[in-house]
Amino acid sequence: MSAIPCGLKGLQIGGGCLVFENVWYIAPLVAVLSILTGLYILWWVKSQDPGNERTRFIGGAIKQGSQAFLNRMYRTLAMFVAVMALILFLFLPHPIWLTSTPMNNVMLAAAYLFGSICSGVAGFIGMDVATDSNMRSATAAQKGISKAFQISYRGGAVMGLAVVGLALAGVSVVYFITRDPTFIVGFSFGASAMALFAKAGGGIFTKTADIAADLVGKIEMGLEEDDPRNPAVIADNVGDNVGDCAGMGADLFDSYVASLMAVMLLGVIIGGYYVELPLVFAGIGVLTSIIGVFLVNVKEGQEPGPVLNNGTYTATILYLTLSGIATYLLGYEWRIWGAAACGLVVGVVIGMTTDFFTSGDKAPTQRTAEASQTGPAITIITGFSYGLLSVLPPLVGIGVGSWLAYALCEGIGPGYGVYGVGIAAFGMLSIVGMIIASDSFGPIGDNAKGIAEMSGMKSETVDILDKLDAAGNTSKAITKGFAIGAAGLTVISILAAYKEVAEAQLGGTITFDLMNPVVMAGAFIGVAMPPIFSALLMLGVGRNAQRMIEEVRRQFREIPGLREGKPGVNPDYAKCVDIATIGAIKELLPATIIIIVATLAVGFIFGVQGLGGYLAGSIFSGLVFALLMSNAGGLWDNAKKYIEAGNLGGKHSDAHKAAVIGDTVGDPFKDTAGPSLNTMVTVIGLIANIFLPLFLLYALIR
Amino acid sequence: MSAIPCGLKGLQIGGGCLVFENVWYIAPLVAVLSILTGLYILWWVKSQDPGNERTRFIGGAIKQGSQAFLNRMYRTLAMFVAVMALILFLFLPHPIWLTSTPMNNVMLAAAYLFGSICSGVAGFIGMDVATDSNMRSATAAQKGISKAFQISYRGGAVMGLAVVGLALAGVSVVYFITRDPTFIVGFSFGASAMALFAKAGGGIFTKTADIAADLVGKIEMGLEEDDPRNPAVIADNVGDNVGDCAGMGADLFDSYVASLMAVMLLGVIIGGYYVELPLVFAGIGVLTSIIGVFLVNVKEGQEPGPVLNNGTYTATILYLTLSGIATYLLGYEWRIWGAAACGLVVGVVIGMTTDFFTSGDKAPTQRTAEASQTGPAITIITGFSYGLLSVLPPLVGIGVGSWLAYALCEGIGPGYGVYGVGIAAFGMLSIVGMIIASDSFGPIGDNAKGIAEMSGMKSETVDILDKLDAAGNTSKAITKGFAIGAAGLTVISILAAYKEVAEAQLGGTITFDLMNPVVMAGAFIGVAMPPIFSALLMLGVGRNAQRMIEEVRRQFREIPGLREGKPGVNPDYAKCVDIATIGAIKELLPATIIIIVATLAVGFIFGVQGLGGYLAGSIFSGLVFALLMSNAGGLWDNAKKYIEAGNLGGKHSDAHKAAVIGDTVGDPFKDTAGPSLNTMVTVIGLIANIFLPLFLLYALIR
Repeated sequence: MSAIPCGLKGLQIGGGCLVFENVWYIAPLVAVLSILTGLYILWWVKSQDPGNERTRFIGGAIKQGSQAFLNRMYRTLAMFVAVMALILFLFLPHPIWLTSTPMNNVMLAAAYLFGSICSGVAGFIGMDVATDSNMRSATAAQKGISKAFQISYRGGAVMGLAVVGLALAGVSVVYFITRDPTFIVGFSFGASAMALFAKAGGGIFTKTADIAADLVGKIEMGLEEDDPRNPAVIADNVGDNVGDCAGMGADLFDSYVASLMAVMLLGVIIGGYYVELPLVFAGIGVLTSIIGVFLVNVKEGQEPGPVLNNGTYTATILYLTLSGIATYLLGYEWRIWGAAACGLVVGVVIGMTTDFFTSGDKAPTQRTAEASQTGPAITIITGFSYGLLSVLPPLVGIGVGSWLAYALCEGIGPGYGVYGVGIAAFGMLSIVGMIIASDSFGPIGDNAKGIAEMSGMKSETVDILDKLDAAGNTSKAITKGFAIGAAGLTVISILAAYKEVAEAQLGGTITFDLMNPVVMAGAFIGVAMPPIFSALLMLGVGRNAQRMIEEVRRQFREIPGLREGKPGVNPDYAKCVDIATIGAIKELLPATIIIIVATLAVGFIFGVQGLGGYLAGSIFSGLVFALLMSNAGGLWDNAKKYIEAGNLGGKHSDAHKAAVIGDTVGDPFKDTAGPSLNTMVTVIGLIANIFLPLFLLYALIR
Repeated sequence: MSAIPCGLKGLQIGGGCLVFENVWYIAPLVAVLSILTGLYILWWVKSQDPGNERTRFIGGAIKQGSQAFLNRMYRTLAMFVAVMALILFLFLPHPIWLTSTPMNNVMLAAAYLFGSICSGVAGFIGMDVATDSNMRSATAAQKGISKAFQISYRGGAVMGLAVVGLALAGVSVVYFITRDPTFIVGFSFGASAMALFAKAGGGIFTKTADIAADLVGKIEMGLEEDDPRNPAVIADNVGDNVGDCAGMGADLFDSYVASLMAVMLLGVIIGGYYVELPLVFAGIGVLTSIIGVFLVNVKEGQEPGPVLNNGTYTATILYLTLSGIATYLLGYEWRIWGAAACGLVVGVVIGMTTDFFTSGDKAPTQRTAEASQTGPAITIITGFSYGLLSVLPPLVGIGVGSWLAYALCEGIGPGYGVYGVGIAAFGMLSIVGMIIASDSFGPIGDNAKGIAEMSGMKSETVDILDKLDAAGNTSKAITKGFAIGAAGLTVISILAAYKEVAEAQLGGTITFDLMNPVVMAGAFIGVAMPPIFSALLMLGVGRNAQRMIEEVRRQFREIPGLREGKPGVNPDYAKCVDIATIGAIKELLPATIIIIVATLAVGFIFGVQGLGGYLAGSIFSGLVFALLMSNAGGLWDNAKKYIEAGNLGGKHSDAHKAAVIGDTVGDPFKDTAGPSLNTMVTVIGLIANIFLPLFLLYALIR
């Protein structure tokens, strides 16, 4: 059968020309398939052996704690969401008392609510399956690595498929009803605001618990990691789920939707099939992920790390092939496909950089471990320096990659250059279902190991789970780099969309010229936002950890027999979970609200151009700090593990003590502040887009 | 006598109109006066009692070591300067084989050489008088604080007056000969390249010695600070002189010349008296500094800190008054004067912020000290977080200040807006002579205290010098903030000048539009430069400290009687100075050369607009990291001092140990990487300006 493209949406078969007018329907169809596949895997995971009573008790406590945190956080956020929906309804896209189409206000507020809910549901599902998988993975590990890996990985896959399925379904629904990507901005904003809270809250929770468990448990009481006598130990495990699983899921949901939305908006300027092309590519990407997650399996005796990486590479090639076929069949511009490939290559560069700077078998980590022999100060200075160096390749990659994508597509016609940048961003995120699966695998394996230790399984079982944990650490670092890079490119295209929309509404040309002092002033303020946000989160962790430390000390003091490990005496795990929960919710609000208010303030004072500079400034320093903090944190963690593996004196040596201090410094770097920054920058970009009509109307400097 | 302005450069006296055609001659005249005053104070300092034999022996060793370092560094740099002069001669302003005015090439190369030499001489004089003042201040402290303060402060004043005198004289000479500010770019580039090497080299030297002296001396051997048995102790004191005195002098020389040059270049676009106005304001500023340094005196029993601050405030008011009178008499635009005032206000904001975030009696430092009770990791996280917070007010100040200066002057006519920004930058630096005097006072007092301890003076004497040291620490932190802010505003005006010159040469309009992917790519690469530069310097400190630690250990091992303090047994101080010197020179080259080469590479690949983005990007992250590192470093230092003053358990408590680790991390932050960044960004800006003709001819993307 010969298939020759005929025109925009046609395929010549034999003599006729088959037209795919509504080819974008692949998106909702695949989205539903993704959700169904996720449900199937969920059923499969739940049908595995949950283990003996002790295992189920501990797994249950973790599940309970995680649910309690998410419930309480979502309840608190419901207030915020309701207020924001009301604001949107009253003022946007146009003040309700000035507009002739009040229905648009209803739609925008509804899209916003819908985005918040979808994001919340995705996070909830991911967390739920993660807490089902961890005890089952631990139980399976008693028989070997293959099944244990499969359960951990598939648990992550449920999260991955749920996130992309819900995201794509949600965007499709909004688009189907409105046929106008403007309303997808509302959906995206709902998802992003939710993600910001989830990341910040989860990040504070997890490090609060981690630091308190370590400082009182390990250092003051001399307990080992995951000792069930430690009252903070369940909270620590809960933290892995709410921070890494639910948080990262919400984060990538947000990036995915935002980049899809941005490129659709840019497509509106061009017109034609370019609005729907991203949906087609998205459908293909989700299909790739559905196939991909079934290809990742570990045989007995195999190392899990390379298997995970191979899965990512296979999916990349599969995606490029399938999207290439679609480009050919549907007669799309090849240069657009090239831009998507650019994005994927940048993703690989960032992943490789992260791997080089954080893996235990590479020079930076080993040098930092060696520096630990001269004391903790040198550990910090050396690791921080390597973290600083690690920002160069990703930034050059993003800069050159976005320029290449632009240069590639620029020749097609006006508007295609920035569209190419948007496609590159979305290209990086196309196989995000796989990425999330690899990422969630990490905390599930970590939890499984904790559960195995707490329920006293054999050391061979723990060793197997340790392998999963170590592989998960590296894959987690790589996917974090991926998420940061994708957010960087996405926000560039959000900035481009912002500009295009502003020009359309103003009917003139807008430049974000750095020599315009309003743009420059905006940029200077924007540059300061990521540092401020990081600082507030980290100070929040410090304060919250302090509260929890006191509670842990109190329990050891007041519960008789706890310290000695008298049988039947259990600490009050729930109380610690409670403190971490309340504290995290209390501490996440100031940081996030300050960012939202500052963005609105800059928009209303410095106007559209000032806000453009502000957005660019926040991208610049946001990327630098996100990369620095994630990579330095990962490096310190692995330098500690390198010493623990018996190098440079091994555990309990002076070098190890210094490395532990480095690791503790790195904890809030890599798990609280660093990974929240890309969400923060995305939220800034979406606020800029969504409130644009008001800035045009009411800003001081116009 | 009634004085009414009459026209551009006239003053109506009685009935006639007196014309000040060459009013800018005030600049060279005041410059010569400044140098002469400096020489007089130098003579005054040298005529003070240098103390007994022991004091002179130690002071002599410090002086010798400092001279040895500067000699060796300047010898190495002579090679670089010669090569660069040759490059300039061959290629710029136009390739010598293409130009009809080869004399211009000779002039540019000559101006460059002249700038390098002036900067070197200023550094040398400052270092020389500092090493004369320290022992004399220690000797005088035996009689009371008044004379000791006077000697320390006047030692710093010599440096201040030499720097501004030589800078202003140099610029005046180049301008007198060429009447073309373009050649001042060459002079400025010479000064900046020299400053970059001096700051980086001095910064590596000083922290190498400091860390080695602390780690082996204090921690391994249990010696006190400044114990003469410690072989690294002289090197440590030498470091204060070469890093803080010579380095900071070269740095401010560079900022001063660069900001003067930039605003003169911007004045060329406007024409008229605007080219020479900055020279008039500069002359008034130097005059203010000459008067100001004589007003700063401490009476017995008075605290030196407030006296230093009052001196700065008095000079600020005096400068505003005198420049206001000049504006009135010479008929200058009042809005230009207003822009200068804007700059000074921003300087005050930055100074106040620095003071708040680093002073021992303010919340951030005390909270960090309290956090030290939970261990060193929390010290680092807390201090780092406050450092991050500290970037907000200066960045907002610079952003809003430059916008205000622009908005104020924009109305005068085209080209005046950016000129206003340049004037604001220069306004901040107008009283730089005073600033340098306060700044150099710090290391002189620090050294005096060291000499007093090493020569066994009474504890009352040491206490007096301790007060000078503490006051110096705060004033040093404030002036560092000042230097960073001034560099930020200066580089904005350098960027503006770059754009104006490029437009003049191209004959078209250039915008640095962030939506131009070439500008964006340049910005992403530029943003990465300050982190890379910081990392390379800090890793250099680590490696160099390692070498010196081994030497110190060797001396304790091999010199009999050294450890026990046998009378007559001296360590081999010179060997340590030697190691620090050779290492510093070896380590400073890669970092600085990478920056220069990267800038040229971006210019030749991405062209004029890409380089504009690159420059802007490097300003953004350069300011963030410079502020973060300087302030966090200062904060950790003072948190340690707060505990040492008897709070939270005092010396030798666990909190103190944690705070010492924070302080050691902060050392290369605040004394190596942080303060080198502003020079780095200035150098990038000057390379962009000076190589512009070649980028216009040969860049890949034009």
